[in-house]
Order: sequence, then structure tokens, then C-alpha cells
Amino acid sequence: MNEIINALYQRKSVRVFTDDPITDEDKKLILTSAIQAPSAGCQLLYTILDITDQIKKDRLADLCDHQSFIAAGQMVLIFCADCQKWDAFYKEAGISPRRPGAGDLLLAVEDAMIAAQNAVVAAESLGIGSCYIGDIMENVEEIRTLLALPEYVYPACMLVFGHPTAQQQNRTKPSRFDLSDIVCENAYQAKESSDIRRMFAGRTGLQGYDAWMQAFCNRKYESAFSREMNRSMEIYLKPFLEKEGVSDLEK
Amino acid sequence: MNEIINALYQRKSVRVFTDDPITDEDKKLILTSAIQAPSAGCQLLYTILDITDQIKKDRLADLCDHQSFIAAGQMVLIFCADCQKWDAFYKEAGISPRRPGAGDLLLAVEDAMIAAQNAVVAAESLGIGSCYIGDIMENVEEIRTLLALPEYVYPACMLVFGHPTAQQQNRTKPSRFDLSDIVCENAYQAKESSDIRRMFAGRTGLQGYDAWMQAFCNRKYESAFSREMNRSMEIYLKPFLEKEGVSDLEK
Repeated sequence: MNEIINALYQRKSVRVFTDDPITDEDKKLILTSAIQAPSAGCQLLYTILDITDQIKKDRLADLCDHQSFIAAGQMVLIFCADCQKWDAFYKEAGISPRRPGAGDLLLAVEDAMIAAQNAVVAAESLGIGSCYIGDIMENVEEIRTLLALPEYVYPACMLVFGHPTAQQQNRTKPSRFDLSDIVCENAYQAKESSDIRRMFAGRTGLQGYDAWMQAFCNRKYESAFSREMNRSMEIYLKPFLEKEGVSDLEK
Repeated sequence: MNEIINALYQRKSVRVFTDDPITDEDKKLILTSAIQAPSAGCQLLYTILDITDQIKKDRLADLCDHQSFIAAGQMVLIFCADCQKWDAFYKEAGISPRRPGAGDLLLAVEDAMIAAQNAVVAAESLGIGSCYIGDIMENVEEIRTLLALPEYVYPACMLVFGHPTAQQQNRTKPSRFDLSDIVCENAYQAKESSDIRRMFAGRTGLQGYDAWMQAFCNRKYESAFSREMNRSMEIYLKPFLEKEGVSDLEK
């Protein structure tokens, strides 16, 4: 196993940071690694928001399911899928382009996430830990105002960075499922009951499958934050699903 | 700049491969690097389809905007956002979960893309090139049948891997925009006309901004494949936007 693959294997999320700041040099290396990532047609269909204002960090911590460690991040980046800027580029050339659609949005989300993971890998190589915050998808109305997001810009993910404390460095990385439980050859295959129960044997412990899964479902999937994600996402999607030629009056 | 960051900077897409196969050992390292990526709640909300059947590779090449190099890939992986499997996990425990929503889909897409980029970085470290194929989003009806995808599974991206030819190794990597054109501090900022024209000065050459942008728009954004992406994506989204308690008869 080479150094790079070893780094990918070892990387785990970090949620407690030391007070050591991230140097300007390291920040630039991380951001430049992000934008060197592959991108559809080299369009870089994203905008990275670098949140340096402590008041905004505090508000983001609150709006993202009250995770206070976000406010302590030494660097907070929001990777936005941006279908607004190419619309502006086309209009600058005198073109009247079609509206961005759901496919354009998803392509931009993919660009944004590929860049985000490059930032994570680059940071890790500099001894800087990171944590993805999917909750940035929530509270669309307040987030749009806080970050001045136009209608065709969607905050795909937030990343919080900082130097890990010793406790975080020594924390055991949660184990993944077996490769054979994630990879299917040539076509999708639904899992058998026995496979499902085997997959979770290492996670559920003495609690047993049914009780563990019920508790997990309540805590995650049926939680208020999860329902809020779905509500907000429908609102983010709305302009991308509107049809051409429908006037504002008809909407 | 360390070895890892240097690798992220140097990486470029590879679309012409030598006949050298990818060894089982390298394939396992790439796939395991993918599933070691961060994942929301360690749920691994994706399924990786490993396309080994040459007839399927040929069909995928045709369905993904007729890009014949896909059929020559030594390894072809499709990273699917999978909201079906946790639905099955919950049902196995006797739970009647809510339907997956748009937020669940996007969270799964993000998980899938983070894992995909780890696969790209791992492959690169082994001397194996890769290319993202966003066109896997197209032709939903045929792709669903070809890959046996259930309604809550969406193929977020395809990756084609192989050893690069000398010509591909020596190809110049397309230059990105300046960092300052991609990063905004604290809030989104639309670009000024002069900024836009400066951003593209290195790309448009003698053709000039307006003509270059019109040609690019016709070739990409207003193309048949781009419209097909939007059509297919709306169909993939549909089950995620249906409301609870609506019976099949009422749909």
C-alpha cells in the first residue's frame, strides 16, 4: 500500500480542533487542490464560500442542527453547486440560454463534491482534519439570506477544518461494511435478509439488529433534521423543475 | 508541496488506455479506498456497480453520448446513490419508514461522489488513469433496465479506468480559473462583466469571448445530451418528490 492509499484508508472525521490556526499557505494549498479536481467540461460548476466571519460561523453552527463545533472550525468552506454563473457567462455573450434544469443541478453538485473531497485529502496530507456537514442543506430560507445565494445556487456541502486534538487523533475510525456488500457486478442486486443481518453484526452488538435499527432510524432517518433536509431540498429544486415559457403570473 | 498535493495537482482525465489490464490487487485497493471515504452517519449511502460484461460496456458507451472509449475501459465503475438499501434495512427490522425524499437523494449523491473521488485519487497513485462520465445520468429508461436499478437508486457517476497511453500522459492539463474567481468570502457575489471577460481571456483566444461562448453553449449547454440529462434527471427525481399517503391509484 502506497502513501496516498494509506492516507485515504486512515482518514477519519475530526470534530474537535486545537487552537492552532491554519496558515494562509496551507489554506491556499487546500483550496487550489480543490479546484484542480476533475470537472465536467472544465466548467468548475461550483463556487466555494470561505466563511471567515465568526458571527456567520456561529449562525451556521446553529442552523446546521446545532453542532457547536462548526463555530470552532479554523476554516469553514461551503461548496455550492452553481448554475447561476454560467447562465451569467452566456448572457454576457448576448445569448438567451435555457433555464438550468435538474440535470444541470446534479452535474454541478457532482463537480462540487469532487472538489470538496480533494480539499479533504489535501488537508489530511497537511495534518489538518475535516468534517463534512450535510446539514447545510437545511433551513433553506435562512441559509439563502445568510449567504446571499441566488436561486440557481445550492449549498451542496459544508466542510469544517482544523488541527485535530490528541483525543481525535487516537479515536478509532468507524469500520465500513465489507467491500462485497457495497459492490455489485454488472447489475444492482437487492440484499437477502441474512446478508443484511450479517452486515450489521459488528455494529449492533448485544442490542440486536431490530432494536439497533429502530433506534438508528429514530435518531437519523425519522429525525426532525432529516425531514427538514427533505423540505429544504424540495425548495432548492423548485427553480430547476420549472418549465420554459411559464410566466411569473402563471406560476 | 507534498507528494499527495502534488498528485492532486497533476491528475488529469485519461480517455485512451493501453491494453494492460488492471490487476485484481489494484482493483481491490481502488475499491477499498472508495469505501473508506467519509459517509453521512457511516451509512455508505451508495452501491458501486462493477461492469465487467463487455456487452454492457459497449451498451454504456453508446448510451453515454456515444463515447466509444468507455467500452475500452479496463475497469468501469458506476457509483449509484442508493436510498433503496436503507429502506430495506429498516423494513428488515419491522419498521415502516417514510418514503425517501429529495434531501435523502442528495445526501446519497454526495456520499457516492466523495467515494468516487477517493477511487480516482487511489487509482492515480497506482499509475491508473480515470475519466468521469456524467452522461450516465442520461437515457434513464434504458439504463434502469440495463443495470436493474430500483426506483430509489440513481446512477450519480460512472468512472472509466485504465493505464494511460504515452500521448495521454504527455497531454497538457486544461488550466483552471484563478482561485479568486471560484472562492467568495462570507457570501455569494455575482461577477462583474469585466471579471467574466478576464476569466475567459486564456480560453477564448483569437475567437473572442462572444463567439467562443456561443460555440461552447451550442456544443454543451444547448446540446441534445444536455437536454437529455435534464429530462432523465426529472424522471429519477420523481419518486423522491411523491408525497406520503398518496396511493398508486391517485398518482
